[in-house]
Amino acid sequence: MIDLRSDTVTRPTEAMRAAMAAAEVGDDVYGEDPTVRALEEHVAGLFGHEAALFMPTGSMANVLAVAAVVAPGQEVLCEARAHIARAELGAHGAVSGLTMRTWSHPRGQVDLAALGELFAPDLGPYFVQTAALSVENTHNFAGGAVLPLADLQALRAFADERGVAVHLDGARIWNAHVATGTPLSSYGAVADVMSVCLSKGLGAPVGSLMLGSAEHIAGARVRRKRLGGGMRQVGILAAAGRHALDHHVERLADDHAHARLLAEAVGADPAGVDTNILAFEVADAPSYVARAREAGVLVGAVGATTIRAVTHLDVSRDDAERAAKILGSL
Amino acid sequence: MIDLRSDTVTRPTEAMRAAMAAAEVGDDVYGEDPTVRALEEHVAGLFGHEAALFMPTGSMANVLAVAAVVAPGQEVLCEARAHIARAELGAHGAVSGLTMRTWSHPRGQVDLAALGELFAPDLGPYFVQTAALSVENTHNFAGGAVLPLADLQALRAFADERGVAVHLDGARIWNAHVATGTPLSSYGAVADVMSVCLSKGLGAPVGSLMLGSAEHIAGARVRRKRLGGGMRQVGILAAAGRHALDHHVERLADDHAHARLLAEAVGADPAGVDTNILAFEVADAPSYVARAREAGVLVGAVGATTIRAVTHLDVSRDDAERAAKILGSL
Amino acid sequence: MIDLRSDTVTRPTEAMRAAMAAAEVGDDVYGEDPTVRALEEHVAGLFGHEAALFMPTGSMANVLAVAAVVAPGQEVLCEARAHIARAELGAHGAVSGLTMRTWSHPRGQVDLAALGELFAPDLGPYFVQTAALSVENTHNFAGGAVLPLADLQALRAFADERGVAVHLDGARIWNAHVATGTPLSSYGAVADVMSVCLSKGLGAPVGSLMLGSAEHIAGARVRRKRLGGGMRQVGILAAAGRHALDHHVERLADDHAHARLLAEAVGADPAGVDTNILAFEVADAPSYVARAREAGVLVGAVGATTIRAVTHLDVSRDDAERAAKILGSL
Amino acid sequence: MIDLRSDTVTRPTEAMRAAMAAAEVGDDVYGEDPTVRALEEHVAGLFGHEAALFMPTGSMANVLAVAAVVAPGQEVLCEARAHIARAELGAHGAVSGLTMRTWSHPRGQVDLAALGELFAPDLGPYFVQTAALSVENTHNFAGGAVLPLADLQALRAFADERGVAVHLDGARIWNAHVATGTPLSSYGAVADVMSVCLSKGLGAPVGSLMLGSAEHIAGARVRRKRLGGGMRQVGILAAAGRHALDHHVERLADDHAHARLLAEAVGADPAGVDTNILAFEVADAPSYVARAREAGVLVGAVGATTIRAVTHLDVSRDDAERAAKILGSL
Repeated sequence: MIDLRSDTVTRPTEAMRAAMAAAEVGDDVYGEDPTVRALEEHVAGLFGHEAALFMPTGSMANVLAVAAVVAPGQEVLCEARAHIARAELGAHGAVSGLTMRTWSHPRGQVDLAALGELFAPDLGPYFVQTAALSVENTHNFAGGAVLPLADLQALRAFADERGVAVHLDGARIWNAHVATGTPLSSYGAVADVMSVCLSKGLGAPVGSLMLGSAEHIAGARVRRKRLGGGMRQVGILAAAGRHALDHHVERLADDHAHARLLAEAVGADPAGVDTNILAFEVADAPSYVARAREAGVLVGAVGATTIRAVTHLDVSRDDAERAAKILGSL
Repeated sequence: MIDLRSDTVTRPTEAMRAAMAAAEVGDDVYGEDPTVRALEEHVAGLFGHEAALFMPTGSMANVLAVAAVVAPGQEVLCEARAHIARAELGAHGAVSGLTMRTWSHPRGQVDLAALGELFAPDLGPYFVQTAALSVENTHNFAGGAVLPLADLQALRAFADERGVAVHLDGARIWNAHVATGTPLSSYGAVADVMSVCLSKGLGAPVGSLMLGSAEHIAGARVRRKRLGGGMRQVGILAAAGRHALDHHVERLADDHAHARLLAEAVGADPAGVDTNILAFEVADAPSYVARAREAGVLVGAVGATTIRAVTHLDVSRDDAERAAKILGSL
Repeated sequence: MIDLRSDTVTRPTEAMRAAMAAAEVGDDVYGEDPTVRALEEHVAGLFGHEAALFMPTGSMANVLAVAAVVAPGQEVLCEARAHIARAELGAHGAVSGLTMRTWSHPRGQVDLAALGELFAPDLGPYFVQTAALSVENTHNFAGGAVLPLADLQALRAFADERGVAVHLDGARIWNAHVATGTPLSSYGAVADVMSVCLSKGLGAPVGSLMLGSAEHIAGARVRRKRLGGGMRQVGILAAAGRHALDHHVERLADDHAHARLLAEAVGADPAGVDTNILAFEVADAPSYVARAREAGVLVGAVGATTIRAVTHLDVSRDDAERAAKILGSL
Repeated sequence: MIDLRSDTVTRPTEAMRAAMAAAEVGDDVYGEDPTVRALEEHVAGLFGHEAALFMPTGSMANVLAVAAVVAPGQEVLCEARAHIARAELGAHGAVSGLTMRTWSHPRGQVDLAALGELFAPDLGPYFVQTAALSVENTHNFAGGAVLPLADLQALRAFADERGVAVHLDGARIWNAHVATGTPLSSYGAVADVMSVCLSKGLGAPVGSLMLGSAEHIAGARVRRKRLGGGMRQVGILAAAGRHALDHHVERLADDHAHARLLAEAVGADPAGVDTNILAFEVADAPSYVARAREAGVLVGAVGATTIRAVTHLDVSRDDAERAAKILGSL
């Protein structure tokens, strides 16, 4: 069975397992796990942020990153299929008490004209006030689309003019970096707070980080504990994450090539596949998922008629070619 | 000073004051205020709903109506400038724990194509699920625009096909009714839950109602108490509301004529003024508000460059003509 | 039927109705209702507080007063049968996101030894921190018990030593004032934030106020709007409240005498009846309530075996004597 | 440095690291991690519960266990120093929207008389209703005190008579089991929902489980995802937990002996030390903590004058004897 449901399904490699087994650890609730602290400093440094905080999941990293810049009763603006809007089970409302309004773009891109219409300045205590703008790069439900750096920089300028924050959901920022050659620090520079994930394309079993200023991270540390995310000797997982960063970033280019190969097979435009995610339309998504499974390929339904296939560390060239054949025949 | 900031500024008439002074009352927390119960039954009947509940404000009526059909962690879809999204201080997130996604329409209209893109079916417990669609009629921040009944009926059909609820913010449904002649019961028929307001165009000092099924209302009665909206001998206010319904509905046609008159004066297209609200663009909204005030007219800023002027019970034909002259000269 | 369920059931007098009918009003969401503003200033002055805010209910006044001094994730300490803990439908948790811990006292009194045990200082971000102490005077579910001023002053000193706030639920502070002669300003001096109610013993149909510093009230004004408590021409109700304050405070002494009369009739110790509330034990509260109703007296069950009877403006001396006879015979 | 701050500071043994490195894993968000599923089934079986769910922390396990049986606006009763009340940063209010009331017992024990006073039956929608009773065994802030099985069974009967649930915080239930010989299944039988922890005395680096009915667990799985606790190839951690269960339970008896040894050294009554936690009073806790640290022993302040010392897997007999000498001399 070739599993293309998500790049979250990757299993740790032998070398990664060895790194975990050898990790030096301490009690991270007390801030004493050296492997975690080193990872946090390393990743903050990669993106030019002041501080970072290890999280059990990308969802928690996003929830706490947004909550760091949007108070209860305020709003964040994002694209309508953003992960924070579609796939975090409403935690931003249910847990953080904030609201969202959305613009829609077929490729999940920044749309400054739409943002100009949506933006709500502080007009006094009768109105909801926009406190942050959020973008996702690459954009998962828009088929792994890359957001060009120039657009992100324009967004940053738009936010600065209005005195609001930018949140970057960078779960797959590594894919954007590899696909475009944009330095990680350039992405980091457009965001006040951001999340990055170690357990998707990078192949670590568990773990994300939130990045931001020292003050944002100090507040998030308390909120992480409140949500039940304050783990103890979690250097075990941080070691896997560090190994992934050191060994699995550049190889994402292979995943991107495999995704284009799949696109061709299902008759989608490979030029529309920026990275490792292929989204394509079918007549009936649930039935397509079932037929693909029977034929030996696992894909996911992310809409009534939308299929998502994702390539990753555990999909070899051979796997990709076999999956292309199978999906091409459905 | 002619006050066009909102139709919420109306003061009760002498006849309305007499009705309040004579109202028979009881403890409404125990469901024993006869004037409140009669009003609730009357208004439910007007819209063909099973039950109704008196509320201190339209905001609480909307918050509890939406909460009746959208659980924490689920979402409601609405137009981007809907009152529930823009003007209820984020209560739907902060108090009810739900989220929103939005489409944008310059006149606040139903957009089934946009809704088709936004709608999120139940794809399992990883995704936020759309539980309700919300529309506002007339649409306040879209300049009092009427939503045509045919569009609302198409929305109802869209919702039924997907098994989700419709919420109608009917704060100014009376204006839509008078402007178009559409029966109130036809509006009621498209909504599972709705709110109507007695203290805007109708001129009662305080009061809104939520409408829905007996089950929706029973749940809302508990939630109303939790939010601190369970008032006691509130028949005093219900009497004003009933008086308004009996005497102030048909006269809304005058307000509509006055608003068109203002539109002409400021060079806006009167055909774009469906009811009693005029929204128009200026270079700088806060400065315009200040200059109008100096000239004897109060208007409001609802965006950085958008002015709102609203006609109502306390704006006579003479007032409207004077205001038109003043605004026309700015 | 003699209604002793609560002092919330009183109906406005003719003079109060006349005051409402004549009230000068404005839009209180814009802070422009002169009758409301005058009432707020008057009541703040009575208690020596800086500012006040009119509220639709005592529940909302308590919820917003506590939220002004206790952040989400912090805690307030109160007696186990306090109204905020027992009778506000969990709003302090469900709406404000704070927690409570409680001490128990048969008469609802301050217990500094218990408070000393419960008090949680700021020991770092792993622990819940006590942010406020709350007391209720008179204490409703402890049978209208008065909290002696000396105890409240000791509580104030305890709070000051620890740098935390005091909340006073003064729904029936008027009864404590009349029963003991303690000046209202002395009660006001022990509290950072407090609530007072106009619609219980005082006989206004609707209305409470929250009191506190100008900053507390400014924050509460926003939160009141978020909860849907920002009413418009609410001077109608404020006029009733002002009338009640001017005419119905001293007469509470009659209610207190009537309650002692009832206590004697049911064999309770009249010395245990401080004010207008009598709580007494029966074998089975729901069945007692039913039998009393058949005999012409309405009382309430506030526990499986606890009955509450409350005297008020609409219970005359004759009513009280008849009710005493009836309850005495059950 | 001998670290007695908490049994959370233990580091995984070599054998445990090997188990982690060899763990078979899958994507647990999809329910496909075989090591996690086996652990969940194993632990559910130990306590006679229907199902279990792996959690990143004991805090999340408690928050979701209580939320499974207490709705927003309802209340849970617990002892005043219970971990859920004191050490979970108010998540039960801030995240779950429920409230608490508390009784106080110097040894954290069940007090049925106090519970009888506190218990709030369903008296209609004006009152907060007790939905669950919560106990902690062993009770951390009461010095690791064991709750006798007979008391827990009496609590179970009390709850059954009233139709409410029992929550057991079993973070250190293993210590109670080893100290008393009570079967784990007997503890499991008194609780509707419970939590157990693998990362405290048992020495796993990370991980707790919530236990309950299949329905409770299905709901908790969704809520876990919403809180950001839905990790991916978390079998790595589950393998450590399973190893701990298989090898580190019986040895807790050593920790208990070490704690009694410390008690003697500081002049506390060793009979008061039921398990691995020693709480004792000093003049000034923060200063005591500082002096102990200088002398080579880390202890914690859990109150202004209360010190907590905890023995665990990483404290050998020698360590315990040295620490006893040092603390004895302070």
